[in-house]
Amino acid sequence: MAVRALVFDVFGTLVDWRSGVAEAFRASGVEGTAGDLADDWRGRYRPILAEVNEGERSWANFDELHHVTLDDLLAERRRDLPVEERRRLVEAWHRLDPWPDVPAGLEALRRRRVVATLSNGHVALLVDLARYGDLRFDCILSAELARVYKPARAAYLMAARLLGVEAGELMLVAAHGWDLDGAREAGLRTAFVDRPLEYGPGSGGRAHPDADVSVSELVELAERLPG
Amino acid sequence: MAVRALVFDVFGTLVDWRSGVAEAFRASGVEGTAGDLADDWRGRYRPILAEVNEGERSWANFDELHHVTLDDLLAERRRDLPVEERRRLVEAWHRLDPWPDVPAGLEALRRRRVVATLSNGHVALLVDLARYGDLRFDCILSAELARVYKPARAAYLMAARLLGVEAGELMLVAAHGWDLDGAREAGLRTAFVDRPLEYGPGSGGRAHPDADVSVSELVELAERLPG
Repeated sequence: MAVRALVFDVFGTLVDWRSGVAEAFRASGVEGTAGDLADDWRGRYRPILAEVNEGERSWANFDELHHVTLDDLLAERRRDLPVEERRRLVEAWHRLDPWPDVPAGLEALRRRRVVATLSNGHVALLVDLARYGDLRFDCILSAELARVYKPARAAYLMAARLLGVEAGELMLVAAHGWDLDGAREAGLRTAFVDRPLEYGPGSGGRAHPDADVSVSELVELAERLPG
Repeated sequence: MAVRALVFDVFGTLVDWRSGVAEAFRASGVEGTAGDLADDWRGRYRPILAEVNEGERSWANFDELHHVTLDDLLAERRRDLPVEERRRLVEAWHRLDPWPDVPAGLEALRRRRVVATLSNGHVALLVDLARYGDLRFDCILSAELARVYKPARAAYLMAARLLGVEAGELMLVAAHGWDLDGAREAGLRTAFVDRPLEYGPGSGGRAHPDADVSVSELVELAERLPG
């Protein structure tokens, strides 16, 4: 079956969340190493999404969840921070730089296939990121539209349904094994893109041998698209 | 309240459905004046949407509804047409030329505000139209995401919710009074754009005095955005 459309994970795969969030921590004056604070915050992401998916927490979007996890992080570290500063930190997730290969890579792929996001971030957040990074997508898709977070099967199948393609005609592009595994289990094709700098310099490259394609830059993927 | 985002009706407002559909009728060999056939087909659009909104017909997307209304049209006119030809006619709605002012107008507006579609057409259809016309939106929104068609209030409010704005911060841009009225009743701001050629040369201009702004080209709207 030919790949008719590509959907992209966003945080870590297309944009460098760590640099932007660390910079926001630096500006906030919160005591601690900015990179560590960013990693700590990001580390609370999958557990809280699991709470939502398992029905232990009612549906909430990324801004709402970022507020909760930031409050937890600051409380555990016994750091105080005014509400306005907390809001600024949450908003830092709306303005993150794309990895350098992304603008040209997306354009090359968009000439060949339908290109959309498929992020756990909500639609308004993705719109802000795309505008900030001047990234052009054919469509913004978000787990928000399925009201269940990746890696739940329904999030991937929603994307195929809305794009009018079979699951097997849709390819998820992501830097994270858990996301690629979720997509594969839902019947999608998968492309792993290595982002060795996601957790900062020296955090190292990754691999995902189960992916249909593995690349280190998006332009490579444009040349190696199956079908 | 400032206008933070604009949503656009698509068929008639941004793209010239009549020329493209008439051309497809010409190519199909169906007997009759191509423009009249296009108008007849389009005329069946609002009644069948009302059937869906009133629960008399289960949810169906534009491709599915176009098949139903085309079958009706051909049956009433006692015209036979092979399935494959009917499919080609339905697909003509995926490849329609934008009105000449649209590409530059959308770009001028996108520099100032968030710009999205809000069409009764389904997401996959809108993606095809945007790619065909090389139109850039920040986001593709469709009544499909609310599973209720405009002018139902919920379709407009879904757009505000997904874009993260209040209804009063969102402006609908449309060429049709019924759509603008629906938006206004849902609390949106409204911009009327006159498309005197929508029903062919000589069909004449329209007006919608209740709209917050009235323009004849999208670039005008960029200069006259309130707030």
